[in-house]
Amino acid sequence: MSNTIEEPSRTHDYGDNSFRHFPPASNSPSSIPKPEPFHIEALHTVPTAHSISTRGVSLSEGDKSSTTLRRSRTLLGLSPDAPLLEDDDYHERQKLWWSRVRIAMREPFAEFWGVVIMVLFGDGSVAQVLLSAGQTTAPGGAGFGPYQTISWGWGLGVMLGIYVAGDSGAYLNPAITFCSCLFRQLPWRRFPVYFIAQILGAFVGSGIIDIPSALNFICLTYNDFRYLRVPSRYAVYYPAIDWFEGAPGRRSVPPAEKATANIFSTYPQPFLNTGQQFVSEFVASAILLFVVFALKDPSNHGSGKNDKWFPLCMFFLIFGLGACFGWETGYAINLARDFGPRLMSYCVGYGTQVWSAGGYYFWVPMVAPFLGCAFGGFLYDLFIFTGASPINTPWIGFKLLLNPRHAVQLRHERRQRYADESIV
Amino acid sequence: MSNTIEEPSRTHDYGDNSFRHFPPASNSPSSIPKPEPFHIEALHTVPTAHSISTRGVSLSEGDKSSTTLRRSRTLLGLSPDAPLLEDDDYHERQKLWWSRVRIAMREPFAEFWGVVIMVLFGDGSVAQVLLSAGQTTAPGGAGFGPYQTISWGWGLGVMLGIYVAGDSGAYLNPAITFCSCLFRQLPWRRFPVYFIAQILGAFVGSGIIDIPSALNFICLTYNDFRYLRVPSRYAVYYPAIDWFEGAPGRRSVPPAEKATANIFSTYPQPFLNTGQQFVSEFVASAILLFVVFALKDPSNHGSGKNDKWFPLCMFFLIFGLGACFGWETGYAINLARDFGPRLMSYCVGYGTQVWSAGGYYFWVPMVAPFLGCAFGGFLYDLFIFTGASPINTPWIGFKLLLNPRHAVQLRHERRQRYADESIV
Amino acid sequence: MSNTIEEPSRTHDYGDNSFRHFPPASNSPSSIPKPEPFHIEALHTVPTAHSISTRGVSLSEGDKSSTTLRRSRTLLGLSPDAPLLEDDDYHERQKLWWSRVRIAMREPFAEFWGVVIMVLFGDGSVAQVLLSAGQTTAPGGAGFGPYQTISWGWGLGVMLGIYVAGDSGAYLNPAITFCSCLFRQLPWRRFPVYFIAQILGAFVGSGIIDIPSALNFICLTYNDFRYLRVPSRYAVYYPAIDWFEGAPGRRSVPPAEKATANIFSTYPQPFLNTGQQFVSEFVASAILLFVVFALKDPSNHGSGKNDKWFPLCMFFLIFGLGACFGWETGYAINLARDFGPRLMSYCVGYGTQVWSAGGYYFWVPMVAPFLGCAFGGFLYDLFIFTGASPINTPWIGFKLLLNPRHAVQLRHERRQRYADESIV
Amino acid sequence: MSNTIEEPSRTHDYGDNSFRHFPPASNSPSSIPKPEPFHIEALHTVPTAHSISTRGVSLSEGDKSSTTLRRSRTLLGLSPDAPLLEDDDYHERQKLWWSRVRIAMREPFAEFWGVVIMVLFGDGSVAQVLLSAGQTTAPGGAGFGPYQTISWGWGLGVMLGIYVAGDSGAYLNPAITFCSCLFRQLPWRRFPVYFIAQILGAFVGSGIIDIPSALNFICLTYNDFRYLRVPSRYAVYYPAIDWFEGAPGRRSVPPAEKATANIFSTYPQPFLNTGQQFVSEFVASAILLFVVFALKDPSNHGSGKNDKWFPLCMFFLIFGLGACFGWETGYAINLARDFGPRLMSYCVGYGTQVWSAGGYYFWVPMVAPFLGCAFGGFLYDLFIFTGASPINTPWIGFKLLLNPRHAVQLRHERRQRYADESIV
Repeated sequence: MSNTIEEPSRTHDYGDNSFRHFPPASNSPSSIPKPEPFHIEALHTVPTAHSISTRGVSLSEGDKSSTTLRRSRTLLGLSPDAPLLEDDDYHERQKLWWSRVRIAMREPFAEFWGVVIMVLFGDGSVAQVLLSAGQTTAPGGAGFGPYQTISWGWGLGVMLGIYVAGDSGAYLNPAITFCSCLFRQLPWRRFPVYFIAQILGAFVGSGIIDIPSALNFICLTYNDFRYLRVPSRYAVYYPAIDWFEGAPGRRSVPPAEKATANIFSTYPQPFLNTGQQFVSEFVASAILLFVVFALKDPSNHGSGKNDKWFPLCMFFLIFGLGACFGWETGYAINLARDFGPRLMSYCVGYGTQVWSAGGYYFWVPMVAPFLGCAFGGFLYDLFIFTGASPINTPWIGFKLLLNPRHAVQLRHERRQRYADESIV
Repeated sequence: MSNTIEEPSRTHDYGDNSFRHFPPASNSPSSIPKPEPFHIEALHTVPTAHSISTRGVSLSEGDKSSTTLRRSRTLLGLSPDAPLLEDDDYHERQKLWWSRVRIAMREPFAEFWGVVIMVLFGDGSVAQVLLSAGQTTAPGGAGFGPYQTISWGWGLGVMLGIYVAGDSGAYLNPAITFCSCLFRQLPWRRFPVYFIAQILGAFVGSGIIDIPSALNFICLTYNDFRYLRVPSRYAVYYPAIDWFEGAPGRRSVPPAEKATANIFSTYPQPFLNTGQQFVSEFVASAILLFVVFALKDPSNHGSGKNDKWFPLCMFFLIFGLGACFGWETGYAINLARDFGPRLMSYCVGYGTQVWSAGGYYFWVPMVAPFLGCAFGGFLYDLFIFTGASPINTPWIGFKLLLNPRHAVQLRHERRQRYADESIV
Repeated sequence: MSNTIEEPSRTHDYGDNSFRHFPPASNSPSSIPKPEPFHIEALHTVPTAHSISTRGVSLSEGDKSSTTLRRSRTLLGLSPDAPLLEDDDYHERQKLWWSRVRIAMREPFAEFWGVVIMVLFGDGSVAQVLLSAGQTTAPGGAGFGPYQTISWGWGLGVMLGIYVAGDSGAYLNPAITFCSCLFRQLPWRRFPVYFIAQILGAFVGSGIIDIPSALNFICLTYNDFRYLRVPSRYAVYYPAIDWFEGAPGRRSVPPAEKATANIFSTYPQPFLNTGQQFVSEFVASAILLFVVFALKDPSNHGSGKNDKWFPLCMFFLIFGLGACFGWETGYAINLARDFGPRLMSYCVGYGTQVWSAGGYYFWVPMVAPFLGCAFGGFLYDLFIFTGASPINTPWIGFKLLLNPRHAVQLRHERRQRYADESIV
Repeated sequence: MSNTIEEPSRTHDYGDNSFRHFPPASNSPSSIPKPEPFHIEALHTVPTAHSISTRGVSLSEGDKSSTTLRRSRTLLGLSPDAPLLEDDDYHERQKLWWSRVRIAMREPFAEFWGVVIMVLFGDGSVAQVLLSAGQTTAPGGAGFGPYQTISWGWGLGVMLGIYVAGDSGAYLNPAITFCSCLFRQLPWRRFPVYFIAQILGAFVGSGIIDIPSALNFICLTYNDFRYLRVPSRYAVYYPAIDWFEGAPGRRSVPPAEKATANIFSTYPQPFLNTGQQFVSEFVASAILLFVVFALKDPSNHGSGKNDKWFPLCMFFLIFGLGACFGWETGYAINLARDFGPRLMSYCVGYGTQVWSAGGYYFWVPMVAPFLGCAFGGFLYDLFIFTGASPINTPWIGFKLLLNPRHAVQLRHERRQRYADESIV
């Protein structure tokens, strides 16, 4: 049984609408009714590692620095060959120390800044709408935007974030990264570095809304809060939050009347119990991933070949989730988007209530997106996807769960192949 | 008279902007002033069944499983050859039992999930706007969205639903499927399976808004309602509806003051009589189909070659119908979107008023969309469409209606041809 | 002096982004500093009449019916060769009586229905917003849409209307047709038939809002109004207007408190005098045409090659005019859009006030759009356009105005050429 | 060390998605670890001056007029070869006096009119929203647009302005031009002429909102204000401002209750001190440039090859800045957009308060956009951009700052190369 598992890396050909599919199994002499169990196509189809290196995309092969680079990237869990354009790769400027770092960290940097942009627009829109509510001096006489503006903010934040992140395949959301690993054969090794980049991005992005820099935050952690108010006074929405809360430095958490903590992260409506909070996040996350998989499915005639439309479609998708499922729990649907800013709000003085509010709601948007997205991906693969997926293996994938030997064997084979390609 | 009628099936080449037209009638020795009466081009032009099978898209021809598959699809009323990409077809994973089911049911599954997504966003937006109206704790201080948000919800629901459904040609609406059969030679055999999939999709989609699963619904049907409130309490908008209505389990229908039944399906304004309700739906449906036919007309220089723009244009079209014709009767314009959720609302306890409200309004959005869309299609084909259509036959198609022998003969010829291609 | 003036007709290649430019003047032996005075490139570049006929797009040349068709189209002022796809042209169905009429009337039909769709969405949005204002039973509790919905309605009405009209080059607005003749060498013979189609389209489109059919209107004209209220009661917004005005059949014109005439056509704010009304329409029209010319300029790197984006850009442009210049006079910017519905409102019982309101304002949106658009086109051609335009002739075109002999000579040459190509 | 620095000029191939990169340094015998320090790729990659002239885009080379043209353009700081399509260049009409002026001034004219369109929509939307606030006679009963309409106005103003300006690379904002010079090797010589065109455009554009013409303004400057009110009464929003302020000719500046000066330029919220005003503008500007650089980065897989999407993405970006960072200081983020209209408002009678309001706030939107954009560009190039940029030189560019000799040498080399190509 020759299970050749392909190595997914980032696509170099985002714009050419071409998708690679598995070749006809003409060279595989396996018996008919037994399909290969784990031949998952990459969500983001790409030249394989080998094709990249023969095309010379790695920095001057055989070169010592290049070997170092590959080793660093492998340690980070990334594909050893950095996703770069051919022209740039050979260029001398890539041999500068910082350029090598940037190439080694390319995908995490992209995710980090994508999430920063997303959170800046998202949290920024909440801040503007919340803090200016009812201000009669606004043009139009009724504040600087209604709730709908928040749908716009998060929708276009995700859209522009995807443009910034360069379609890294991680989509600014650990749950989507998770499902790409689970259903689309993104190696699990990739998950930790993307995950950390996403959380950090959300932490920093939301910090710009209230505290200008990580430096400032570090000072705040190790010193008395009151002395250091001078620098923090210059954060974007710092004075506005003071003005809204009514007293300098007062920070309150919903359901307080002048609460501003929901600028940072989501808080549920008071009439929901924990199970209902969970279901609301679960369903929104399942819809999110179901549609993302449809938009990225090369076998789906409706969208698979329209790669350039993906960011715009994500705008409509996120806008829709905000407009249709945003009321009850604020459509977190993203651990990074919720946990990072919540941590920041804890740091800047909102107190432990950010964790205890809503019946210790904070864990719901950490867990529900993963389970919801996994369920959405399961449904999509079960009913629509015809490509390679664990669902398209015997017993719609449950053989992998129920037959440990089967799964172990697959895992072994995949490792073997990674070793052959010197990835580990 | 050699009336060769082509078999329309689903397009494989959604993205390449190519449209097939009828070849010049060079090989048809028919006399000049007598055109073929029913040479309708497919709305979604495609490789014919033959061209598909010679390109090998059917599963290993001559194979027993493939024959079974073709037979199953024919029984369902679908094109015997499943719309699949070549690469996937040969793949072993397609020989798994579930994969074969999925291929057999491909179009109904696509329609089902497309409608689910559409209804989730559409009904979700109504629920959020209706239930949160005037909530002063919302960011902005005035609820989680105005009426306009509902236009967004349905508009982007249709857009994303079309992406999910893969441009199956049925467009998530039985009335559009109906007009594709009537004017664009989609075989009538296709209609029932699409119809059932669409109704079921709307039923299930709206169920997720208030009741989490069909399982739950089955329990409710065969048991006392009160005992089973525990699981249903975890539906997405269940607690919110309770909160809004003011008492657990209370469910009321417009024109009651705290009515929530219009989350599910449409209810007319009180100043309309039945005829006026009918006209409102009729005109909106006619506009819908007129524009859809324009957007899909390969002979229309404005849009025929812009296939990738179709989902976005549908967003604007549905948004516009909601913004311009959504007040009086709620722009149902779709039997599935209105009847499925209405049935669900009846099941979850809104009582018989869901049928009797508005002077037994419920039948209007079941009948008017079909007649309105047919009229819209008639107008488009009469004044603009130059391709094959019953309108482009003698007596602008009325010969088919008034001369039964003519129509019977055509029907016979079409059957003959289906038999030749072993479709029935 | 060999002034070869090209014949513009409708583009067949809307989708391929190709634009034809003048060939290098290598074969023109004219002296250097004297450019040809009127070499205007078509706004909608196309195969010339000759290239069409040699490609066989006309119906079976030499055929009697084809000659009739060409003669009919010439009489209407249209290009003798109908804009059709090659495949369709040869098809027998085109020889049916009605098909020939449709081909003869192709462009007027397209314009008519494009304007109908535009006005349906535009006036429909005004009707919905105006009549439902403040209705607390609406989802969200504040009517079915704010003023912004009207920007959406007209914006997407124009966008979808352009898709329906197939980019006929007339753009649903007599002032744009006028400027295409003035600056982009669309023959003046085309103007009357487009003009009539546009006015009729707006008249009929607005009629659907209040009176269901022209038939009904004819009845109303020749009979007592009260007897025929029965059929008219079934118009889309008829009952709603009655409900809003407070008495059946009452119809009032701004500035009456419950006025509904502005559903049909525009009425100015009361603080404007006639000159100010004129300036407001003039500036909005100038912006309209300036941007339209930019979007259609093949020598403009920003937009000239993005034909598929044109309808979407028009959505943004019309939305913007409504959002930024729509308050004072309602951004008519279109004789057809304003005069057609105003006539309809007069017919359905609003009385002579529709003409006298606002200091006989009705003539302003008839005259200002032409002058404003002409000024906008003048500015664009003066400062940006490098192609053929009267502005790009000696004395920036004023030689044509000031030297009658020069203009007469040009007119003679153009006629000569039309005769050579047997257009007249 | 052969540092060949390429000359960026305007792209002729906006639509073909091709981007030029540096060739592999095969012909450069420089030692390996020392990269060329300043090999910056153009933001708007283009045929070089040489490739243009060999392709014959300049007007009849060797011709006297052509030499004059090149000299005029060089004097203006523009690329000597005008960006024109080949066909147009050879055409005789280009030899008219005014055509030559237009070609010489092509980029400034484009920037000027792009800014005019941007400011017309932007300031127009503010005027409409501000002046009509709360008007109950509006359709919908609540004025002609909420604050969100202003986001639309500026967003689509920038989008349509970019279409008009033809992707000149200056993007209607001196800060973006500045960063293109700083990071993307647009020659600094280009900056002044773009800068002047942008300021003038904003001045004139805002003038149309209140005073119809520059002529009128000149009269106002040299005469008594009261006598000349007659012509100015016909400006677009002149009567509306009078009506809103409550007395003819009264003009007041925020925080006055009926202030209208913020139609023209931005004024900060009262709770901000100068530093906080600065930070707000700084952060918004940094986001602006960060995303613009991402959208224009050919090495970014997410967006670099989607040139046709750029104007639409700018709509979303500007909309987002308005929706998320527009409250505190009005998101000027553009010296031209703020200073030009502010000067106009001073001229038309708002008095010296336009300068002193907000603690002499006027200088903040003149300085902060430059620093903010520079910081945003620095971040993008530091973390994501792999092409040529000062950041991709030794010591991430600080060697250029800290080692004057190094910078002088580079400057010398660049001048040398300009001289070789006879640019100066």
